[in-house]
Amino acid sequence: MKLNIAVLPGDGIGPEVTAQAIKVLKAIAMEFNHVFTFEKALVGACAMDKTGVPLPEETISICDKADAILFGAIGDPKYDNDPLATIRPEQGLLGLRKTFDLYTNIRPVIAYDDLLNKSSLKVKQIKGTNILIYRELASGIYFGDKHFSNDEASDVCKYKRSEIERITHLAFKAAQGRKHKLTLVDKANVLASSRLWRAIVTEIAKDYPDVTLDCMFVDNAAMELIINPRQFDVILTENMFGDILSEEASVIVGSIGLLASASIGDKHAMFEPIHGAYTKAKNKGIANPIASILSAAMLLDHFALYDEAALIREGVDKALNLHITTPDLNTKYDNISTTKVGDFIEDFINNPDETNLN
Amino acid sequence: MKLNIAVLPGDGIGPEVTAQAIKVLKAIAMEFNHVFTFEKALVGACAMDKTGVPLPEETISICDKADAILFGAIGDPKYDNDPLATIRPEQGLLGLRKTFDLYTNIRPVIAYDDLLNKSSLKVKQIKGTNILIYRELASGIYFGDKHFSNDEASDVCKYKRSEIERITHLAFKAAQGRKHKLTLVDKANVLASSRLWRAIVTEIAKDYPDVTLDCMFVDNAAMELIINPRQFDVILTENMFGDILSEEASVIVGSIGLLASASIGDKHAMFEPIHGAYTKAKNKGIANPIASILSAAMLLDHFALYDEAALIREGVDKALNLHITTPDLNTKYDNISTTKVGDFIEDFINNPDETNLN
Ligand SMILES: CC(C)[C@H](C(=O)O)[C@@H](O)C(=O)O
Ligand SMILES: CC(C)[C@H](C(=O)O)[C@@H](O)C(=O)O
Repeated sequence: MKLNIAVLPGDGIGPEVTAQAIKVLKAIAMEFNHVFTFEKALVGACAMDKTGVPLPEETISICDKADAILFGAIGDPKYDNDPLATIRPEQGLLGLRKTFDLYTNIRPVIAYDDLLNKSSLKVKQIKGTNILIYRELASGIYFGDKHFSNDEASDVCKYKRSEIERITHLAFKAAQGRKHKLTLVDKANVLASSRLWRAIVTEIAKDYPDVTLDCMFVDNAAMELIINPRQFDVILTENMFGDILSEEASVIVGSIGLLASASIGDKHAMFEPIHGAYTKAKNKGIANPIASILSAAMLLDHFALYDEAALIREGVDKALNLHITTPDLNTKYDNISTTKVGDFIEDFINNPDETNLN
Repeated sequence: MKLNIAVLPGDGIGPEVTAQAIKVLKAIAMEFNHVFTFEKALVGACAMDKTGVPLPEETISICDKADAILFGAIGDPKYDNDPLATIRPEQGLLGLRKTFDLYTNIRPVIAYDDLLNKSSLKVKQIKGTNILIYRELASGIYFGDKHFSNDEASDVCKYKRSEIERITHLAFKAAQGRKHKLTLVDKANVLASSRLWRAIVTEIAKDYPDVTLDCMFVDNAAMELIINPRQFDVILTENMFGDILSEEASVIVGSIGLLASASIGDKHAMFEPIHGAYTKAKNKGIANPIASILSAAMLLDHFALYDEAALIREGVDKALNLHITTPDLNTKYDNISTTKVGDFIEDFINNPDETNLN
């Protein structure tokens, strides 16, 4: 297969982790006789520094022509301190989501057996957890009308029926391929937009009689995710709640440096770790590249390259099993760098049967 | 002191737990020679059943005349299933908050030494945690304009400068009496309303040079609350984020049945457990009354009855220490009921030096 991949490393640790994902994708291409080409583009704070805007036209055009987008991270504290700034790095990311209508954000949350003791949660609490979060990504309060003055400010959370329907069908289909359970998280006891979600999702549930639908208020879900995470299979929720719950859910996995995501639209798809730019960790070789590498695996899944994706995941499992991990997860070895983790998984792909500590 | 207390037991387990709080307040009145009178009123689903509305005029008038309001819980699944209903039990609670402009919701989150092993989190993770959440309660997306049609729905999150300023001063003052640290939780990288919060709180911080201000994005805060809860002293946040984070924080304490809250306005104050109506547990004698009893302690604090409040808290500590707790917390005795816990704390107040298992 030929795949033309737009690479947007972004800010902070974005470039370092993305470099590992590319390394791994190149190994896959070699091993499976695919042709993957990579075209880099600017986004975020680095784009502001060089072009004045967080999402330059050139970047949009490169992404538009690509088969998929591999995204690193975005944001820089130097742009965070002025709440009145009208141009901010995050607009690069939000602009991509909106421009390409990437409305379904998929975030797997898996408790790896080899990492159970790394979590803040008790092992018995999380063992076996496997959740797929479907977060609406192109609407809601992120993109509603905004007003800001010195005296008041407002944001509108608006959802159209069609925006809810399209992701809901995808979430039900995902549940059909898993444990047949879907939990809608909303705040229908307070929000009108949540009541529309609940009405539509309940309606659509009738088309998927083999899936059990549960509805849960977001405050309760934030608690249940910690006290009983195994109750969840697929979680479906709106943009802001999905942002909060998916980052919270990273505690189950043991490190936010492991969480990958796919942002899917009808014509475009973007793959990115859910962690941020962690400017403080930049260029220290300590950034965990696994979230970015697993995002590359989700990219391959998206093009039905399942064996390829599975091989990457095996490499990740092996790295975790042998403690070939960055310091956020490593209590055994103290100097395994970002690059070293990438190299290990690359080697594994080249020689799945032989890879060892070397 | 004379205190006229409006009692709104509400729905589900509300009446059971409130009865224990009243019992305890009566014991305090006796012991300290105060005159506490209690006047009951309807709110929520039970009010809808009897009067057709969740917040009857009579209830408003009883609360208006009272010195303080003691609230139980609200909600009933029989009213949850119709997302299109225009009258809902929760409007009773929201109506009280709005009518009496109860803009500051204070939620303490304390990891009791005797309960550390009850939490889903590892003991070393939570030991020593003591957080005070200041949640804005009378504005934001809860009370902004709402629209609902079959095809789209929206909610507005709007904040005025004055609404942010008043709670911010209270939160900074609270931090001055504690560990001198305030964490503002917002989503200033996306929301205009959050940027106004950040601008105002940063401004006001200059008036409190002895308090360190930290700003944190809500998604990150949802993670940090679990992986490093001890970093927090006072958390200040807007209405919806406060709803989510405070229920999430209950996992630190070990049971949501322990979390009390105060909702303070300039002229009125209401005290309520943060747990809901748990209709399934109703009349089974298993509802944990401690959150309601600790809410009564917050009521006494509000009127500067500090010794009285402290005695209640000692009684609670003793109950926890001796395993006089409902099944949600008890692994030692299996039939300690709601009433039994209330009785124990009542006895303790009557005879602080003599109370034992009896
Ligand atoms: C960087 C920020 C705008 C973004 C979001 O809020 O969606 C991030 O937190 C995420 O979850 O991808
Ligand atoms: C019952 C509900 C409306 C309420 C809220 O969302 O504020 C509750 O969750 C709370 O936190 O007091």
